[in-house]
Amino acid sequence: MTRVLAVDLGGTKTSTAVFNDTAEMADRRKHPAAHTLEGTVAQVASAAKEANVEAVGVIVPGIYTERTGNAWAPNLWGRDEVPLHSALMAAIRAPVLIDSDRSGYVLGEQWAGAARGLSDVVFVAVGTGIGIGILSEGRVVRGARGIAGAAGWMALDPRWKNEYEAVGCWEAESAGPGVARRAGMGSAEEVVAAARRDDAAAVEALRAAAVYLGMGVANLISLLDPQMVVLGGGLMQAGDLLLGTVRTEAARWAQPIAMAQTRIELTALGEDAGLFGAARLAFMGTRLNAGAIHVS
Amino acid sequence: MTRVLAVDLGGTKTSTAVFNDTAEMADRRKHPAAHTLEGTVAQVASAAKEANVEAVGVIVPGIYTERTGNAWAPNLWGRDEVPLHSALMAAIRAPVLIDSDRSGYVLGEQWAGAARGLSDVVFVAVGTGIGIGILSEGRVVRGARGIAGAAGWMALDPRWKNEYEAVGCWEAESAGPGVARRAGMGSAEEVVAAARRDDAAAVEALRAAAVYLGMGVANLISLLDPQMVVLGGGLMQAGDLLLGTVRTEAARWAQPIAMAQTRIELTALGEDAGLFGAARLAFMGTRLNAGAIHVS
Repeated sequence: MTRVLAVDLGGTKTSTAVFNDTAEMADRRKHPAAHTLEGTVAQVASAAKEANVEAVGVIVPGIYTERTGNAWAPNLWGRDEVPLHSALMAAIRAPVLIDSDRSGYVLGEQWAGAARGLSDVVFVAVGTGIGIGILSEGRVVRGARGIAGAAGWMALDPRWKNEYEAVGCWEAESAGPGVARRAGMGSAEEVVAAARRDDAAAVEALRAAAVYLGMGVANLISLLDPQMVVLGGGLMQAGDLLLGTVRTEAARWAQPIAMAQTRIELTALGEDAGLFGAARLAFMGTRLNAGAIHVS
Repeated sequence: MTRVLAVDLGGTKTSTAVFNDTAEMADRRKHPAAHTLEGTVAQVASAAKEANVEAVGVIVPGIYTERTGNAWAPNLWGRDEVPLHSALMAAIRAPVLIDSDRSGYVLGEQWAGAARGLSDVVFVAVGTGIGIGILSEGRVVRGARGIAGAAGWMALDPRWKNEYEAVGCWEAESAGPGVARRAGMGSAEEVVAAARRDDAAAVEALRAAAVYLGMGVANLISLLDPQMVVLGGGLMQAGDLLLGTVRTEAARWAQPIAMAQTRIELTALGEDAGLFGAARLAFMGTRLNAGAIHVS
């Protein structure tokens, strides 16, 4: 049976797992993130050698440019691009496929999660930031420079605030740090815990974030006409507290025909969406059999 | 030399022209729109027969579903879908290719206009409504039901107004009827004429529309990372009065790296963008030679 190694390079940890072509995950591990290219390559090469796989899929928390093989992920490797593909290929005796985490999430969810088998899907990752992965007619939309999906910058309110300058309007209003700021608490986790105890400020902070989440999701539906919008990322651990308002607000704003036919769901893969996506990438890129689901 | 007939079915007029494969337009004509399927077919068949072309490209002011060959354009044929492709194919001795006007505009502009030869382009049509055509890595993005690009519904202001209910937030704020309403005048044409005479209410109405136009364009840049956003449609006859504010506002809101590399330009084809797009469609769909420009 064909096996691949999936690697999710996060800003603080590297996650790895082995997958077969029916999307069964095994040997899931976490390591502290390496913060040099050499360190990252050593981590991935060691895992690939041990697992004895036929291909490796890697997702990066930033931008990957397929044409050059370079990756840009300032949380990992500083401000400059690094030659990730050539460095990994030199160290590993198997094909290596790389993409951004946003692309990985939507590929994973479409392969093995909530959007299984669909052709038009948007994955909205809401954590310390907001980014989206777009699948359109089975193809990942990457844009001219690989930075499509920088949705945290979506303008949703003409009343400019200074917070918008660094991270964009949607991210300032709806991502974790904005939720914490609005509630006057130290972190989004704290806000979520307080909301579960019915703390009024926490409940209101989550509600306000969900209103903007609904507007943003509505815009993705009107612009891209997907079959499903999947919500994931760290803040969606409070998905049960957010989803109702997101759906109500989205229905208020989105193009009605598209809205009526689009489902808005929480991720089915949780924090493993990236690993599933990396595995899918490995199967796709190497043209190994990856089940009956077609992704061109 | 290969020749095709291009047909732009508008809500009030049918435009036709003959094109060769180097995008030279000839014999451009306008007829009053036909408001039955039979009338439309008779118009197109008559023009195709007279021009003796090798293929016909048609764009419709609504939705076209390639899988079924059905078109939906309530301004032309009422509330139900019509079997446009089979009806045209029965009357015309040449391949017939059909798409929505939004898709046509972006294809035309990329073939022969401001975005010539680019792979990632968004065309924003601002007239009595707002709609966009999206070209991503050389492919038109149509969505799961063919209604991608319903950008008039983009939510850009959480302060709900009743006008948003029927046409969406962006369209209510920035399209022609909204401009007229804001200026207290009868039509957008009247507002533009008054603004050219420095009428204060007219200038302010156009400025306010341009602020929302800039926000919407910013969102398209952050989400889709195009090389160019092309502004067209009837209101862009006042493009010289709008473009500066649109660019300034877009730069304020959009993801900065994507923004720095994206040009925002006015259409180079004016009201003929649809005809050029229909011609491009005919060349693409029939795999006739259409010059060196690659569109997959």
